[in-house]
Amino acid sequence: MKTYPAGDLTKEKIYEASKEIFFRDGYKKASMKEVSEKAGIKQSVFYYHYKNKSDLAKKLYSEFGTAHATAITEWIIQNKYSNDIIITNCICSALLIINSVTVPNIGRFWSEMYTDNLTADIPFHRHFHELIFKKRFSDFTEIDFEIFLIEAAAMNCALILSFLDGRLSIKPEELARFKIQNTLKELSFTKQERDEMVKEIIEIASQIPVVCGKNFEIRIGPKHVF
Amino acid sequence: MKTYPAGDLTKEKIYEASKEIFFRDGYKKASMKEVSEKAGIKQSVFYYHYKNKSDLAKKLYSEFGTAHATAITEWIIQNKYSNDIIITNCICSALLIINSVTVPNIGRFWSEMYTDNLTADIPFHRHFHELIFKKRFSDFTEIDFEIFLIEAAAMNCALILSFLDGRLSIKPEELARFKIQNTLKELSFTKQERDEMVKEIIEIASQIPVVCGKNFEIRIGPKHVF
Repeated sequence: MKTYPAGDLTKEKIYEASKEIFFRDGYKKASMKEVSEKAGIKQSVFYYHYKNKSDLAKKLYSEFGTAHATAITEWIIQNKYSNDIIITNCICSALLIINSVTVPNIGRFWSEMYTDNLTADIPFHRHFHELIFKKRFSDFTEIDFEIFLIEAAAMNCALILSFLDGRLSIKPEELARFKIQNTLKELSFTKQERDEMVKEIIEIASQIPVVCGKNFEIRIGPKHVF
Repeated sequence: MKTYPAGDLTKEKIYEASKEIFFRDGYKKASMKEVSEKAGIKQSVFYYHYKNKSDLAKKLYSEFGTAHATAITEWIIQNKYSNDIIITNCICSALLIINSVTVPNIGRFWSEMYTDNLTADIPFHRHFHELIFKKRFSDFTEIDFEIFLIEAAAMNCALILSFLDGRLSIKPEELARFKIQNTLKELSFTKQERDEMVKEIIEIASQIPVVCGKNFEIRIGPKHVF
């Protein structure tokens, strides 16, 4: 059993309480007053532990993304499906999109963070793009990289919100396919290369029994667990 | 001198008044109460002529974009610089970006419209993408096209806002160059093709004396007119 110093325990309680509120209400509507009440603390205590709502939201999404990617990457390595870092990251990305729109309200929460310019700066997002772009482009400048982060976050959020708002009548799997196509286009693969890679990525992704719970829990297991 | 029936004149007055407010305050903060006061009408009259704020904003941005593109395209044709529709559209796009961020507050107005999901649906945006994508991809499905519209609008808005908020320390010309690179990447040109096209586009664009006034007026003329 995990034990915490008293201060850390309060911080953890706030974090847990925020999951429920953020996923129910999305980012914009979520009330930190309600989070504090749910955590059983005064609102002033909230601001002792977290700078503001966006600080907490960024931590939450980053940890979710990292846990998600780690679980999937380990599964791929154990099952020896691919040792290509771009393929592996695209598989993570595809499953992240599918889980974001099928588990309420992860996609809305993440996409709404975009309006406060938070999405491009999330450490998980940065790390993911570092992994795949640094491998492919040795002449990438700092500013190229910053622009890629901004564009990739904007496109993800726009696609997810359009899907959730019903302006895109497609299936979650198709949404993921478009997301992968985008990433591979950003990485300057040719159409033929992209088509082959997308086929491989979708084939592997469809075999990974990643399970994402209502409250951000990630595990690899039979889909019917939840 | 243009004459209008009484109703059209009121509609036109509201439209003119809204330019000042939208460009001063951006989309989010702009108050339709203030627009009505400036136009010398009751707010109920506003809602007789325009469904809502987004209805007016979409009309305004669409007309600005169309006027901008028309002026530039005519200049290119008259001066016989290019008869390639993709090159011509990228030149329009580059100059639109530069004017959007250098003339206060066009870029902010347009980018803030994104948060209400308005940007992808603007007729001018749709028309622009139809022109260049339909020429290039004959196998483009309806859903491919909708996704391209959403992604392109999201990327434009994200880049412009990041620039205006000071998170991207680059010059407006560099911002335009990235925007063109994106469009050409979306159009699946190779890196070598893109590099050559960008060079040509920037060369022509830098010679076009397009002038964009504080209140959306567009003309081709010496830069010092304003």
